[in-house]
Amino acid sequence: MAEQLRIGIIGAGRIGKIHAENVARFIPQAKLAGIADIRLNAEQEAWAKALGARLVTRKPEDLLKDSSIEAVVICTSTDTHADLTIAAADAGKQIFCEKPVDLSIPKVKAALAAVKKAGVLLQIGFNRRFDHNFARIREYTLAGEIGAVQIVKITSRDPAPPPPEYVAVSGGIFLDMMIHDFDMARFQAGSGIAEVYAAGAVLVDPEIGKAGDVDTALVTLKFENGAIGVIDNSRKAVYGYDQRVEVFGSKGAAAAENDLPNTVKLSNEKGVTAEKPLYFFLERYHQAFINEMIAFIDAVRNDKAAPVTGEDGLENMYAALAAGKSLKEKRPVSIEEIRKAY
Amino acid sequence: MAEQLRIGIIGAGRIGKIHAENVARFIPQAKLAGIADIRLNAEQEAWAKALGARLVTRKPEDLLKDSSIEAVVICTSTDTHADLTIAAADAGKQIFCEKPVDLSIPKVKAALAAVKKAGVLLQIGFNRRFDHNFARIREYTLAGEIGAVQIVKITSRDPAPPPPEYVAVSGGIFLDMMIHDFDMARFQAGSGIAEVYAAGAVLVDPEIGKAGDVDTALVTLKFENGAIGVIDNSRKAVYGYDQRVEVFGSKGAAAAENDLPNTVKLSNEKGVTAEKPLYFFLERYHQAFINEMIAFIDAVRNDKAAPVTGEDGLENMYAALAAGKSLKEKRPVSIEEIRKAY
Amino acid sequence: MAEQLRIGIIGAGRIGKIHAENVARFIPQAKLAGIADIRLNAEQEAWAKALGARLVTRKPEDLLKDSSIEAVVICTSTDTHADLTIAAADAGKQIFCEKPVDLSIPKVKAALAAVKKAGVLLQIGFNRRFDHNFARIREYTLAGEIGAVQIVKITSRDPAPPPPEYVAVSGGIFLDMMIHDFDMARFQAGSGIAEVYAAGAVLVDPEIGKAGDVDTALVTLKFENGAIGVIDNSRKAVYGYDQRVEVFGSKGAAAAENDLPNTVKLSNEKGVTAEKPLYFFLERYHQAFINEMIAFIDAVRNDKAAPVTGEDGLENMYAALAAGKSLKEKRPVSIEEIRKAY
Amino acid sequence: MAEQLRIGIIGAGRIGKIHAENVARFIPQAKLAGIADIRLNAEQEAWAKALGARLVTRKPEDLLKDSSIEAVVICTSTDTHADLTIAAADAGKQIFCEKPVDLSIPKVKAALAAVKKAGVLLQIGFNRRFDHNFARIREYTLAGEIGAVQIVKITSRDPAPPPPEYVAVSGGIFLDMMIHDFDMARFQAGSGIAEVYAAGAVLVDPEIGKAGDVDTALVTLKFENGAIGVIDNSRKAVYGYDQRVEVFGSKGAAAAENDLPNTVKLSNEKGVTAEKPLYFFLERYHQAFINEMIAFIDAVRNDKAAPVTGEDGLENMYAALAAGKSLKEKRPVSIEEIRKAY
Repeated sequence: MAEQLRIGIIGAGRIGKIHAENVARFIPQAKLAGIADIRLNAEQEAWAKALGARLVTRKPEDLLKDSSIEAVVICTSTDTHADLTIAAADAGKQIFCEKPVDLSIPKVKAALAAVKKAGVLLQIGFNRRFDHNFARIREYTLAGEIGAVQIVKITSRDPAPPPPEYVAVSGGIFLDMMIHDFDMARFQAGSGIAEVYAAGAVLVDPEIGKAGDVDTALVTLKFENGAIGVIDNSRKAVYGYDQRVEVFGSKGAAAAENDLPNTVKLSNEKGVTAEKPLYFFLERYHQAFINEMIAFIDAVRNDKAAPVTGEDGLENMYAALAAGKSLKEKRPVSIEEIRKAY
Repeated sequence: MAEQLRIGIIGAGRIGKIHAENVARFIPQAKLAGIADIRLNAEQEAWAKALGARLVTRKPEDLLKDSSIEAVVICTSTDTHADLTIAAADAGKQIFCEKPVDLSIPKVKAALAAVKKAGVLLQIGFNRRFDHNFARIREYTLAGEIGAVQIVKITSRDPAPPPPEYVAVSGGIFLDMMIHDFDMARFQAGSGIAEVYAAGAVLVDPEIGKAGDVDTALVTLKFENGAIGVIDNSRKAVYGYDQRVEVFGSKGAAAAENDLPNTVKLSNEKGVTAEKPLYFFLERYHQAFINEMIAFIDAVRNDKAAPVTGEDGLENMYAALAAGKSLKEKRPVSIEEIRKAY
Repeated sequence: MAEQLRIGIIGAGRIGKIHAENVARFIPQAKLAGIADIRLNAEQEAWAKALGARLVTRKPEDLLKDSSIEAVVICTSTDTHADLTIAAADAGKQIFCEKPVDLSIPKVKAALAAVKKAGVLLQIGFNRRFDHNFARIREYTLAGEIGAVQIVKITSRDPAPPPPEYVAVSGGIFLDMMIHDFDMARFQAGSGIAEVYAAGAVLVDPEIGKAGDVDTALVTLKFENGAIGVIDNSRKAVYGYDQRVEVFGSKGAAAAENDLPNTVKLSNEKGVTAEKPLYFFLERYHQAFINEMIAFIDAVRNDKAAPVTGEDGLENMYAALAAGKSLKEKRPVSIEEIRKAY
Repeated sequence: MAEQLRIGIIGAGRIGKIHAENVARFIPQAKLAGIADIRLNAEQEAWAKALGARLVTRKPEDLLKDSSIEAVVICTSTDTHADLTIAAADAGKQIFCEKPVDLSIPKVKAALAAVKKAGVLLQIGFNRRFDHNFARIREYTLAGEIGAVQIVKITSRDPAPPPPEYVAVSGGIFLDMMIHDFDMARFQAGSGIAEVYAAGAVLVDPEIGKAGDVDTALVTLKFENGAIGVIDNSRKAVYGYDQRVEVFGSKGAAAAENDLPNTVKLSNEKGVTAEKPLYFFLERYHQAFINEMIAFIDAVRNDKAAPVTGEDGLENMYAALAAGKSLKEKRPVSIEEIRKAY
């Protein structure tokens, strides 16, 4: 077995905690070497030490300077991702960066250039590719069970909307929420997206509309390989987190249903009732967060390409920006149109 | 296409009406030639004529005397089945008789002897063999998909108990209700039953207990071919008619779930709810009633053996009587012990 | 009980046979009074008489002249629907007309005008509204279980493409196939369609492309009530006829899965396998064909509005034409744009 | 938060490894303080240290003498369970002991007496009560959703038989395999078992028969509270580990299906295929092993009764011995008969 990959986590918020605990407890291939957070408090410090992190600091640069740390996981607020990626690349660290790299395309490009120049590996945190259900669909396609992919359908609905103030700074439903689904679409189609057409509406919360966003959206996709697809998003499914994917092709179709907390069905005078889906992404993608990190470690240790590259992140952003433009201008928008604009 | 089989129905009660309407409307291979009921009222007469029956009478013997009628379907009260079977056999009619032929073994044997002597065909109304689900399981077994049958499990629960006064004359849960499941067990195992052990309890309605019967029963089966099995019955499943079968073997297993009125699932804050099963046997076995009649006609027209013979009826009764004795004497009872007693 | 509605069937092809047999055998509220087909052959004549039709003729006008016939079911080739509808209306018959009334909007309008003038009832054969699954979803919505409808998703895929020569005269995938789904979308949304955007591709059979049509299509819908939706069609799903509907709203969601021939699951080393969906529309919508006719009879007998009106047929055509234009011009097209063009 | 419970693991075989890793990685409420195995090899020692165990030894008594260790988990071979339980009780340790405590009833009783005298807590490793599915069924019952429990059905089939040499020393199918199901039956019924009747056969492997055991068994249960039940076991289900439970009562029924590795269904010309169940108990009961340990820690820390007591272990053994006797003597055997024999 290869030596454990010594990982430093930058950012100890919700997502940083998940990655830190996964590395410390669930991933024997890695060692949690350090944790940095510029607003580290006493509680976080105690938590970090209990997880066995040797280096616990308020200065991310401490992790970057520490030569025993081979890789960093960037989990800070979005506006710092690009700068930290560049600094980490310059320090020669292997990089796992939460999505998105930035909301500005030029900054993303600058970060990608730094990564390329440094010759380090960069993986973006599109974790759903590593979900047991969605990965299985892709396996079926790669095994030839689906034949040529013709239609990709993605349902992705949150259990409850974020606060309107979050919506305002999130970049909107396409960049914040559907970007995961654009990545899934490209992953399942095995192809880039050529064009999108977006329909959207404010049906959940008028405050979201006031913040300039929609809360319900449906985007038609034309893939470069000729397949077509559709994604639908809602900020609020009262029955919980609805995460389904269907791939239809010339030889068959594979479809993933929601994950439930248990398989029990209760039969009574009202009907036969199963549980609601797992509540939200922490429960639903628990294992996917672990799996993506294992894949990252494997790529680093075995000189493989990252399974989700910076270019994937960029392409997903192009799709999101195209969807936003389509919604605004009420016409289909090609990815090329967006790409050329930068 | 062979000429339509001209059928007379004896008994215009609930089950007689089903067979008459099926023959008249759903089975082009047959013609409803006559209907007899000793208590025929004006409404029944109008109904019979609207169905196109030429001969409508209060005298079953009218049907038996009518040389244009080739086959009769006996749907009268149980205590008249054996005599009518004998009379029909003597008249040279092909016979479809509702189960059971009689509650008395000697009378059943007498009826079977008359049938044999007359050389006519006798089919007993164990309709569940013709159900789309259960027939499919048997097909899988016959196609070798299950391998050697090792375990047969049958769940059979009614939505509501019959009135206690019915229970008293019905012969009890084993002869009235579980007899269908003994037939299913023998059908699915492809083997006779060698021995049974019955557990039973009064859990639904104390009046059923006072009538000398149980309302909840679970019978272990040892088949002649070495397989084992179990049947459970309840007189009351609040969620509706629960009719499931599972066959487990060396190469696989096949299991039938309940039929539902539609496939819709409603997702809301309470969970994901499907419909209850179809309410009761009229809804659940609608097509099975038609299919058994088509099989009867096919057997008559093409000189095949009846798909459910008088001997099947007798064997099912032996199993029911053995179960009753097992419950009473708290010990396993072999079918041979019952067989020898007659 | 009201008197049986005396019905004449015009056209004894595939769909005419279904309606004739349904009326004769499965719908006690109606009587099959006559059958007309301009190319009636001896076999059809024998079949018609065996079903009890009194008047069997090569002249549709014979049915229209027959004063004992109250209603006609028009099942001829599409190009004759409008003229027959006008003639039937002029003759004072209640009319059930298979979809579409015509491929030309002006001819449809002329037919509707004749119907209006005559004061007769016209029902169009969009049978899927009467399907047990889809009707159940609508019931949930009407009962308030879904809340405000926000997203409607319809999957509609055929098991095998029609011959290219049929495709050429069919009006194309939107008028021939997806028109059913436009009707379903309007039915489930409880709203008209305001705008459509169509993506389409030739992925199944290049001959279909040569005939000027697509075989795979995905149409985004904006409803007048603010909801959004999507329909996807494929001419070839190797696993059979895929007919699913999902309605998502503020209080919940209801989704219908495919109907299967039985509920059996086979478990073996390869997995747990259920049956494929029912093969095609004759099997899948068997009961829906009956139900729509019962609803027609009910509307006639009880002076109700037709459950699917001529205006519904017209609106569905507008949607289909808008989709065709959208596909051609690569832009969203409003229904109003189409409506104004005529 | 209470201080971590310092746990020593005795026995570093398959099951000991699971408990050690669970304590070290997945259960923050506990600390893996020590590991003892009388045949500890270098690899095990390295593994133990990597998990953070301070005390790694070949002498179980070292753990018992270590005053910083509060609780022990006994995972050694069955023949040492009773003696180690007694020694641990004498040393004042809280005890988690894998099932069974011993194959000899008197030795079990001696161990239970020592535990009682020492006033320590003893929990037996019947982990399935802590499974997400089966625990959910029990919750429904306790919440009143099932009403009075009337029928309990348990299906429990292994994917592959153990080697015949294991079968010979295992105590046979009832003590080795079905004992888990007896525990589940008592748990779900909320009642002791009053009587059992066993049917069994050698259908999987004749070698198992030569070793004096059966490989297929079906046991009828009568519970003390009047409910009835059935358990079926097979040593070989080709489709994998089949673990299902159904509880039927006066107000409803709850049933757990198998857990699958993912929710994907593949539709093609052969049908609609889902995955096989999770392969075997390590995969299937992964979380249940963790949950039972969390419950043990909770009981120790909060002075609660053990959720599975030594008496539970004893009662399960009585049921297994009664089943063995029933199979041999071909008659129902009461638990009381077994209880009195000791």
